[in-house]
Amino acid sequence: MGRVYNFSAGPAVLPEAVLERARDEMLDYRGSGMSVMEMSHRSKDYLAIIAGAERRLRELMGIPANYKVLFLQGGATLQFSMVPMNLLTRPDQVADYILTGQWAKKAMAEARKVTSNIRVAASSAEVNFSRIPRQEELQLSPEAAYVHITSNNTIFGTEYFYVPDTNGIPLVADMSSNIMSRPIDVTRYGLIYAGAQKNLGPSGVTLVIVREDLLGRNAGLHSMLDYRVLAENDSMLNTPPTYAIYILGLVLEWVAEQGGVAALEGVNKRKAERLYAAIDAADFYNCPTEVTSRSRMNVPFTLKNDALNDIFLAEAKKAGLVTLKGHRSVGGMRASIYNAMPEAGVDALIAFMQAFAARHG
Amino acid sequence: MGRVYNFSAGPAVLPEAVLERARDEMLDYRGSGMSVMEMSHRSKDYLAIIAGAERRLRELMGIPANYKVLFLQGGATLQFSMVPMNLLTRPDQVADYILTGQWAKKAMAEARKVTSNIRVAASSAEVNFSRIPRQEELQLSPEAAYVHITSNNTIFGTEYFYVPDTNGIPLVADMSSNIMSRPIDVTRYGLIYAGAQKNLGPSGVTLVIVREDLLGRNAGLHSMLDYRVLAENDSMLNTPPTYAIYILGLVLEWVAEQGGVAALEGVNKRKAERLYAAIDAADFYNCPTEVTSRSRMNVPFTLKNDALNDIFLAEAKKAGLVTLKGHRSVGGMRASIYNAMPEAGVDALIAFMQAFAARHG
Repeated sequence: MGRVYNFSAGPAVLPEAVLERARDEMLDYRGSGMSVMEMSHRSKDYLAIIAGAERRLRELMGIPANYKVLFLQGGATLQFSMVPMNLLTRPDQVADYILTGQWAKKAMAEARKVTSNIRVAASSAEVNFSRIPRQEELQLSPEAAYVHITSNNTIFGTEYFYVPDTNGIPLVADMSSNIMSRPIDVTRYGLIYAGAQKNLGPSGVTLVIVREDLLGRNAGLHSMLDYRVLAENDSMLNTPPTYAIYILGLVLEWVAEQGGVAALEGVNKRKAERLYAAIDAADFYNCPTEVTSRSRMNVPFTLKNDALNDIFLAEAKKAGLVTLKGHRSVGGMRASIYNAMPEAGVDALIAFMQAFAARHG
Repeated sequence: MGRVYNFSAGPAVLPEAVLERARDEMLDYRGSGMSVMEMSHRSKDYLAIIAGAERRLRELMGIPANYKVLFLQGGATLQFSMVPMNLLTRPDQVADYILTGQWAKKAMAEARKVTSNIRVAASSAEVNFSRIPRQEELQLSPEAAYVHITSNNTIFGTEYFYVPDTNGIPLVADMSSNIMSRPIDVTRYGLIYAGAQKNLGPSGVTLVIVREDLLGRNAGLHSMLDYRVLAENDSMLNTPPTYAIYILGLVLEWVAEQGGVAALEGVNKRKAERLYAAIDAADFYNCPTEVTSRSRMNVPFTLKNDALNDIFLAEAKKAGLVTLKGHRSVGGMRASIYNAMPEAGVDALIAFMQAFAARHG
């Protein structure tokens, strides 16, 4: 078959123009006579690639000079450990976590290996994480080293549409699944991290944006786990994931060509609004999330009749709409509609859903 | 220009057939309608890719069933930390390191963050690491938790041609730069690790082969740093570096097509012998390494007249021979001739060197 519309939660759809460029440059990157995969990470060509990616990221996200940009490995899961290792400076120090789903829980579990003083500042567990706690529900510790949030919850389909006010305490955000989907004010955060494999590129590279005053708080950390050492070496303490960073750079070029992050936000809003409207309009479908917390990136929905799930997936696949199966914690379906999912893909899904409901309703 | 002969120490040359396959499959992996980069790591297609890579690796290297194969992130540098974190079980426990260059020193420096009881069992520092210590020089601690070696030294161009007898103590080897260049007996090792970017594939994936009885010796480790947890999750505790593993799988297919590791060893021997012979034959060049320790993968050599270095590099580049500049610790030149460097590339280098010496000698 030709290219499909791939609604995977991650690794996820990439812009076709990026893949075409990667294909065309595979054996010879711009006259260098070699693939980017074959380049020394210290070569002139490669240094231009990684510096270009950082520069473009800073422009697109408006990252101030007092924040370091790091391209690391290990995914968000290693950040679950590195954040507490680096930001907690005494064994009795407290950190606050806002629990909005499985990833927040996992982040907290790793932090508890550093200190037992990890507190839950708010949680929506009692409603199966179908909403984001509001500012007035947060019970923040005035002495916390940091406050941790998961800005978008891939599994449960919820997203923060406000930035928690932490009264000056560094806010740490796992933005893996909504980074670059809309403009953010980086200065509201102490540290942002994101696995690349949703909105930024392929898996295997992890973005960390960290305010300089948060570096070097602890001595004696292992080099690969110490933000200060990694920053001092410009993400080149050892060989970085060179090809993944190259693809990330191509994705950032594509974002710029689309008109930047604000332009993408407009598209993302339209895509999400149309899809949620289609779900809400049909008695046949149901969306489990509270309206004000609904993610623009991951749209979970169930069929009123669960017995139709397998038929839905099989027929969708025939129509070129794939990776729609929902996570087992929510059931039903999940359509992930990241930056690189074209509006036409969402429209095709909606048309399919309407036709399916008409046939089976 | 067309494709060059790339003598980079890593990331390094890849088989052209692998790059062509990656190019052809970039937008549509075998009828899936998507790139491997876009696939969910839990999809059927991707699970077949990662399982196939592991199966082929086990076949090619003869890895016994009581060893786990892990595809991790963070490079050898993160292994410098993970090895002592996982294998040292008491603060007073000892580990032995054999110092054969910069990478061994770095491994030891990270281990010393776990315990101060890291011992140097042997070192060739006094001869600028120009040789590998012999078995009878090793002063091994009978109570050590493990003995650590660097099986090939990328910078200094030396290689072990024997497996240290450790009297039953687990032998841990950083094989980043000579893995799969010749058959090894895996059962002689407790743990083998290797960054992929020399003989296995692109940077961003790290291979760990670990004997099962070495797993789970320490409780409370961070999940991403715990071999037991990573093994229990089949390298899928979180999203693995999916594309890098796919390329690694293609490289392994290529190795099989070449006739396997023993066949590659034959080629590697020929390439290295011819290049060292050419260096030794000319008064114009010098090789700093002791003959019995000379690496088949990384061949450092100097010009008798250092003033010619820049001219050598510039003329070599014009001849399509690139990334030959030596590491600053050794000076001169370094030709890395990994598995994927064709014999024709080595022959072209030798012909260039002879012509250059004739012109400038």
